[in-house]
Amino acid sequence: MNILRKGFIYGGDYNPEQWLDRPDILEKDIVLMKKARINTVTLGVFSWSVLEPEEDHYHFQWLIDTINRLYENGIQVILATPSGARPRWLAEKYPEVLRVREDRVRYHYGERHNHCYTSPVYREKVRKINRKLAETFRNHPAVIMWHISNEYRDECHCPLCQKAFRVWLKKKYHTIDALNHAWWTTFWSHTYNSFDQIESPSSIGDKGLHGLNLDWKRFVTEQTTDFMCHEITALRDAGAMQPTVVNFMDDYKGLNYYRLAQHVDYISWDSYPSWHKDSDIHTAYDTAFQHDLMRSMKQQPFLLMESCPASPNWQKVSKAKHPGLLMNASLQAIAHGSDSAQFFQIRASRGSFEKFHGAVIDHYGGDDTRIFREVTDTGIALQTLTAADVPASSVHAPAAVLYDMESRWAMEDAKGPRNEGLFYHEAALKSYQAFRKNGLNTDIINMDQDLTGYQIIAAPMLYMFRSGIEQKLRTFVQNGGILIMTYWSGIVNETDLCHLGGTPHHLIDVLGIRSEEIDGLYDNQCNHMVPASNNFMTLPATYLCTHLCDLVQLKGAVPLMQYADNFYAGYPALTVHKYGDGLAFYLCADAEDTFYYDFYRQIIQEQELPVIMDHIPEGIEVSSRSSGRQEFIFAQNYTDSPIPFPLPGHAQILFGKYDGTIKEYSTLIYQMEVKS
Amino acid sequence: MNILRKGFIYGGDYNPEQWLDRPDILEKDIVLMKKARINTVTLGVFSWSVLEPEEDHYHFQWLIDTINRLYENGIQVILATPSGARPRWLAEKYPEVLRVREDRVRYHYGERHNHCYTSPVYREKVRKINRKLAETFRNHPAVIMWHISNEYRDECHCPLCQKAFRVWLKKKYHTIDALNHAWWTTFWSHTYNSFDQIESPSSIGDKGLHGLNLDWKRFVTEQTTDFMCHEITALRDAGAMQPTVVNFMDDYKGLNYYRLAQHVDYISWDSYPSWHKDSDIHTAYDTAFQHDLMRSMKQQPFLLMESCPASPNWQKVSKAKHPGLLMNASLQAIAHGSDSAQFFQIRASRGSFEKFHGAVIDHYGGDDTRIFREVTDTGIALQTLTAADVPASSVHAPAAVLYDMESRWAMEDAKGPRNEGLFYHEAALKSYQAFRKNGLNTDIINMDQDLTGYQIIAAPMLYMFRSGIEQKLRTFVQNGGILIMTYWSGIVNETDLCHLGGTPHHLIDVLGIRSEEIDGLYDNQCNHMVPASNNFMTLPATYLCTHLCDLVQLKGAVPLMQYADNFYAGYPALTVHKYGDGLAFYLCADAEDTFYYDFYRQIIQEQELPVIMDHIPEGIEVSSRSSGRQEFIFAQNYTDSPIPFPLPGHAQILFGKYDGTIKEYSTLIYQMEVKS
Amino acid sequence: MNILRKGFIYGGDYNPEQWLDRPDILEKDIVLMKKARINTVTLGVFSWSVLEPEEDHYHFQWLIDTINRLYENGIQVILATPSGARPRWLAEKYPEVLRVREDRVRYHYGERHNHCYTSPVYREKVRKINRKLAETFRNHPAVIMWHISNEYRDECHCPLCQKAFRVWLKKKYHTIDALNHAWWTTFWSHTYNSFDQIESPSSIGDKGLHGLNLDWKRFVTEQTTDFMCHEITALRDAGAMQPTVVNFMDDYKGLNYYRLAQHVDYISWDSYPSWHKDSDIHTAYDTAFQHDLMRSMKQQPFLLMESCPASPNWQKVSKAKHPGLLMNASLQAIAHGSDSAQFFQIRASRGSFEKFHGAVIDHYGGDDTRIFREVTDTGIALQTLTAADVPASSVHAPAAVLYDMESRWAMEDAKGPRNEGLFYHEAALKSYQAFRKNGLNTDIINMDQDLTGYQIIAAPMLYMFRSGIEQKLRTFVQNGGILIMTYWSGIVNETDLCHLGGTPHHLIDVLGIRSEEIDGLYDNQCNHMVPASNNFMTLPATYLCTHLCDLVQLKGAVPLMQYADNFYAGYPALTVHKYGDGLAFYLCADAEDTFYYDFYRQIIQEQELPVIMDHIPEGIEVSSRSSGRQEFIFAQNYTDSPIPFPLPGHAQILFGKYDGTIKEYSTLIYQMEVKS
Repeated sequence: MNILRKGFIYGGDYNPEQWLDRPDILEKDIVLMKKARINTVTLGVFSWSVLEPEEDHYHFQWLIDTINRLYENGIQVILATPSGARPRWLAEKYPEVLRVREDRVRYHYGERHNHCYTSPVYREKVRKINRKLAETFRNHPAVIMWHISNEYRDECHCPLCQKAFRVWLKKKYHTIDALNHAWWTTFWSHTYNSFDQIESPSSIGDKGLHGLNLDWKRFVTEQTTDFMCHEITALRDAGAMQPTVVNFMDDYKGLNYYRLAQHVDYISWDSYPSWHKDSDIHTAYDTAFQHDLMRSMKQQPFLLMESCPASPNWQKVSKAKHPGLLMNASLQAIAHGSDSAQFFQIRASRGSFEKFHGAVIDHYGGDDTRIFREVTDTGIALQTLTAADVPASSVHAPAAVLYDMESRWAMEDAKGPRNEGLFYHEAALKSYQAFRKNGLNTDIINMDQDLTGYQIIAAPMLYMFRSGIEQKLRTFVQNGGILIMTYWSGIVNETDLCHLGGTPHHLIDVLGIRSEEIDGLYDNQCNHMVPASNNFMTLPATYLCTHLCDLVQLKGAVPLMQYADNFYAGYPALTVHKYGDGLAFYLCADAEDTFYYDFYRQIIQEQELPVIMDHIPEGIEVSSRSSGRQEFIFAQNYTDSPIPFPLPGHAQILFGKYDGTIKEYSTLIYQMEVKS
Repeated sequence: MNILRKGFIYGGDYNPEQWLDRPDILEKDIVLMKKARINTVTLGVFSWSVLEPEEDHYHFQWLIDTINRLYENGIQVILATPSGARPRWLAEKYPEVLRVREDRVRYHYGERHNHCYTSPVYREKVRKINRKLAETFRNHPAVIMWHISNEYRDECHCPLCQKAFRVWLKKKYHTIDALNHAWWTTFWSHTYNSFDQIESPSSIGDKGLHGLNLDWKRFVTEQTTDFMCHEITALRDAGAMQPTVVNFMDDYKGLNYYRLAQHVDYISWDSYPSWHKDSDIHTAYDTAFQHDLMRSMKQQPFLLMESCPASPNWQKVSKAKHPGLLMNASLQAIAHGSDSAQFFQIRASRGSFEKFHGAVIDHYGGDDTRIFREVTDTGIALQTLTAADVPASSVHAPAAVLYDMESRWAMEDAKGPRNEGLFYHEAALKSYQAFRKNGLNTDIINMDQDLTGYQIIAAPMLYMFRSGIEQKLRTFVQNGGILIMTYWSGIVNETDLCHLGGTPHHLIDVLGIRSEEIDGLYDNQCNHMVPASNNFMTLPATYLCTHLCDLVQLKGAVPLMQYADNFYAGYPALTVHKYGDGLAFYLCADAEDTFYYDFYRQIIQEQELPVIMDHIPEGIEVSSRSSGRQEFIFAQNYTDSPIPFPLPGHAQILFGKYDGTIKEYSTLIYQMEVKS
Repeated sequence: MNILRKGFIYGGDYNPEQWLDRPDILEKDIVLMKKARINTVTLGVFSWSVLEPEEDHYHFQWLIDTINRLYENGIQVILATPSGARPRWLAEKYPEVLRVREDRVRYHYGERHNHCYTSPVYREKVRKINRKLAETFRNHPAVIMWHISNEYRDECHCPLCQKAFRVWLKKKYHTIDALNHAWWTTFWSHTYNSFDQIESPSSIGDKGLHGLNLDWKRFVTEQTTDFMCHEITALRDAGAMQPTVVNFMDDYKGLNYYRLAQHVDYISWDSYPSWHKDSDIHTAYDTAFQHDLMRSMKQQPFLLMESCPASPNWQKVSKAKHPGLLMNASLQAIAHGSDSAQFFQIRASRGSFEKFHGAVIDHYGGDDTRIFREVTDTGIALQTLTAADVPASSVHAPAAVLYDMESRWAMEDAKGPRNEGLFYHEAALKSYQAFRKNGLNTDIINMDQDLTGYQIIAAPMLYMFRSGIEQKLRTFVQNGGILIMTYWSGIVNETDLCHLGGTPHHLIDVLGIRSEEIDGLYDNQCNHMVPASNNFMTLPATYLCTHLCDLVQLKGAVPLMQYADNFYAGYPALTVHKYGDGLAFYLCADAEDTFYYDFYRQIIQEQELPVIMDHIPEGIEVSSRSSGRQEFIFAQNYTDSPIPFPLPGHAQILFGKYDGTIKEYSTLIYQMEVKS
């Protein structure tokens, strides 16, 4: 269910504290917001120095006034805790709150997202201001949600964190011998005599002890999660019972977001794709991957907390958005299960780092701008969808891609077959796109999650086997599931120790192959895949493969494709093995996109998987949400030309222009009864 | 007027202190200098450790002897203060003189140009040795000028500088509230409670607070200027009244040279173009830009303090100079208003960092080298020009390019439409070359300077409006001037706060346009400009534009060109607006060189601006100096082939071979009576 | 003579201490080693933390047991001192053993090869454990050799090292004045008042004082050598009299290996070529260069201490080796004079940095792998060679390439004609390949070595003249030798001071030319060489030259080739001068490979130098070892196709398949009687 009773949330970050000397501007902002159909704003992100300009001197009146005035104008508030950037006086008085860099240099005051997450002082100061905010706004009808901090990120190597890390490790391993074995410290004589000797990874200390690196990353996630919980507790203890939300970033590798997600009511993310850089439809799928990841993490609706109405200013190049793209991007979030479309920011700053970041209201300040008009059009569109009860629907996916941050950490840290790029994220995207372009809604799940309910699972480059995934996958196939596993899978255990006795670990009998060697290819090298003689799949073409080529021994599987080049020409490149009621495919090499599309298409057709539609035209992304007997289909054109799009006879158009085509950079939404 | 009564200065840096154990070599040097027509050498740069080998023990005799011997041989001296590199004992005894890096690491002794410009100790030590030098040489007839330090550069972040910075800021802003507003510190909760909290920008502190960054750069310039003035005062207090000179570097962005220039009698620069890397004529225009910048800064003759007779050793690749280029480069300086042609260096060092830097006398040591012969030929040429009274002439420019370091600092620091390159310097060069290739002498001025007297001004990318430039430009156009303004202009005020209410700030009515959005283009993207239907300029072609495309709303201006591609095809790309007695053009995009040439050519022809000659052949640079009724025209071939060059009937050749062509890599100088 | 009485050493690094809890694995290892014909393993590298888990608590029993068990199974041991990586407790208790980085930051514990080589504490701790090892194993019949530490490398800038550096400098220069002159410190006022002021080069101090940089590198070599000697002394003092060996790295520039080589019985190296990246035959010659360098350093057999049976994991890309390449690489070492073929590693680690480094026994652990089979085949091949008495033969070379680390240090540190790459190593390789492809065994010697006995010497880019090389070369030519010297030679003396009076210093009369200027070429620039009119060499072609072009004056030499382009077209590009009974060639520019091949071929043919065979097919490398009247010729195909190879009638095949061709990636070894 969505959190806003009236329908989709529409709005964004708003910083009236920058304009307290300009009441005329604040007045005008509300007029413009209402004109644009904005119903919710996020306040308080980075407001600490205005809320508490000196220690224990709280100035909340401006915030109370702002929220009251917004409420009077029908605008709700998501209220942020201010821990994302501390005031200067706090750092000056309590240096322990400042982070220490991995080379053990303590930062001075500056930038943001830079607090030590262990520091008792910082925790106490955050507790106090969060509590104060909660006490002030716990019953305010405008405040519908608590936004916990902002984009938690990075890490601290201070003595307090070192100590906490040691405690965490001791709790995990109990004895130093167990840790020594898990990290294989005998190598290079790195044996620890006691937990007290442990130091976090450092460019001036240990940086190649992969077990240490991996556990450090886990600790950073746990300590960040703990800090977040500490923030939430402060609110709850003060009686604030509105739901909580935390905002994540695109493809952020510093944290295992799944762990944070478990402790918060809603998750959200900040989406800043590089539109108009490469193919926009490709960028749209990249973005959709993140939307689906967010939805899958809690298997519930998420929020699009930030997006840019124009162009963010911190990318290498800021592109003016093509007309229509703003609306496409907002509706895409909805299509993938978001309950909101929100912008950073309502009004542009006059100065400092983000003054040129796009905003609903720019420095010119009028409503006669192209951006403002498109924001308004999008607001109207969302009202239309709300009226059609779209908020009550949700996304259902028969397919899943296994995508695991802990495995990624280990894989990308290890020195292995390709230290100039493994292309893990790209491999996941290839499977994702092949599912989606063939019409399947797709979840992005990790190894901790449940596999039941899916009909097909792609498990690309599952380097680390953890959380009993071997057994889960075996059961999944046994019970009739279709598994596609690839090269560089099942190599190590949870502490990055190599499995002995052959890989993919404990799945050799399920897959019917054993990986014997893996060949790394330089960027300028390639191999090719061609059909094997007994290929019962009808993939007629030759496909390119790059980066990594696994050389496998057959242990019962049937080769479908084989290599064409190098000394391993003729070796299997794609195999299939029937196991239980299911099928287990093994893809040996990093094949080109076309191969994935063709290969998955055949499986989907042969297995009659439930697609949204049979043939999706190139340049269009199609997604669906369903609600009882209604299915809402979103078809979005991400090119600058109209694209012919056949509409089913019984489709009922909810939104968008349709003349047999979908117009350039526009969205068509139609409704169909779910087939029984 | 030039400072050397006898004519042009010819010579360079000379370091006899490296050869005090080789009197034979010092003797031979004088013989060779005289042979090469060298009349002036620069002494004392980096001589401190020989002048004062231990604290308060001065050894000046070698310098006295050297100067006397030079004087006896008719060679004058420019004498340097030695502050460019301190002795080891000074750093050892007084560590406060060592700079602190932006990450707060104090340097050890090493390299050069590395003193703290705030340190009272360093100032006192410099005062003492400068005074001692002044007392010794204030009346020496050979010493014609004081060279203050060497290539001031870089910055120091030590506690003394932090304190001085705070004092400077307090003087500027008076209250911390004023500073907070000017720097927009509410953003990211960066509010200062007091001036004591201010720290210079740092990679371990604040690096994205643009107001801080900008004022820090200003402070560095002011503190360096103050240090320079302190050096000059020491000389003056000791009775040395010869003029002072300071040497600048090519396109150096660490200081605002205009501020230093105000406090010294002469400015000079050190010119090290990368000849034979790209097109040499292009390199020649780049270099000419710097010459004209130096001349314009004080609107008086300057010196070419350093240039390399062969090849400097610190460039990526050291090229042997094509025969003739040495002379071309020396005479080019004269053509643009220099009173000298000087080399670094007379004799090459035997060891250390610059031992392979080209020199008049190399390690071989003979006069039977190609370089020595070309140096000698150039000396003879300068004697010819002196005989023709060229030193009494000067450069007059009807055109100017507005080029402002403070605006550049702010623009290149800001996160904006293109963080991988704004190409500001290139934009200035494009306007400059278009003026110069069409025959206009051109000044390079900043926003503090007077605009009266110019007929045409190009103001490319005038991001920051400061020093009342809005009003100056308005008046300039009002009074009949032609203004060419471009994209990304009038965006911010003097502290980098965005102007509200539309841009270019306060010039919308003068230009007749308002900028609404700006599109950044990736390096592999482009747009095109084509004539608008009502284009009364006759620019028939299609021109490429890249990097930045401004989307403007017409507010009275007439579109001359329009975009051809992307969603803004048809939007204006070049506009003109009549205002008062003048014309205000607005160029929306970063157009290719050819466009500038064609566009400026039309304006120049239509407005009948006073060109040196009508058509300048490609590969030739033409400049002029005038003196009462005589005009001296310098035409220089920067290619390896002769180029046909028509000479006016009444031209009188002063120097160079002429057979209807100008020979490869050579200079033709002729004289004409000024048309009345 | 070779050290292993029974023939070639075959084996590699083995780390049973990682598997002490898995006796089943240790048992299986021995079975597999014997199957693969492995006769020797290296133990103890990085075993310190297991040998001495706490200070003064020694646990040697596992090592005694291992060695006994190996011995019982006929496997010998090379036993390492453990100083390559210290235990954690040692660093914790005695921080002085930790290195200090050049920017004066002390490292924490971590990685390996990171001890201060000056620290008295570290020396004492190493002495104690070495002594203990020696006492335990001095009489063990399995232990045939002591492996001293591992891959000595890098440097330390701690106060102890600074002090030692000053002492070393004082011993070298006696007075600070002598040092000041040698380093030319007057430049930039860098004069030292006393030795106490000296600090090692630093990015936060002096980094451009080239004399300092050079002497620092020399000191690092001397201090490392001293440390190595200290290790050896500890063994000898305890009565261990087995020979010592140290292992070097490929093209390592941090140490002058020649100095270390003088103090150890055997040298060895660790070979990790990037096979299958570029042309494999090219990689083979690169590798051969290192083999020949190792052999020439002590003019005796060396060991191949490490090589990878599969692919090392730390290269950018890990390639699967083509079948046959493993054997080729092992036999190539033997062909060039090695007494061994050894692998890193026998069994792969389960965890940490090198877990994916190729091994004889991988994580799967079976003998049914391609790698294990090829290791076994190679073991059998070595047994065949041993049976034919090949170990008693050695390599004899009529040609030498002068290749000097000290000169290289100085040249690559200096700021000179090309700071983006001088291509010194490549220049040496060009001469080397031209010798080798034309059939000459070749030594790689430095300036300290004896030149007598060679018939032809190439001295490419001999920037620094030291160790009396001018006189040695003069004598060499005088006595009938053929010298090929090139551009950028004889420029500086031993402290990097430029020679005065013309270069190549003191060889102008021998070469008959003087170098006047040198032109650096950008990467995208080139020149050409064409035959001069009086070219008595019959080199008909036009050859490309790049990077550096020397412009010389003829002083008696005859030009053979001349430049074709730029202003110096027609200047000499290759000259020859008869001097005494010999010939002195001077090559002015960095010519392409083909030129070297053609040029050297003509000399070799005209001078009738003793080649192994007349025409070596492209793709094949041919080397020879001889022993009394037998010559063993190794012909190796480094391509993936068979290559026709004519065999002399009287050749007797020892090893390999022959059908008129040599098969892809395979070796043919045959035996011939030496012609009398």
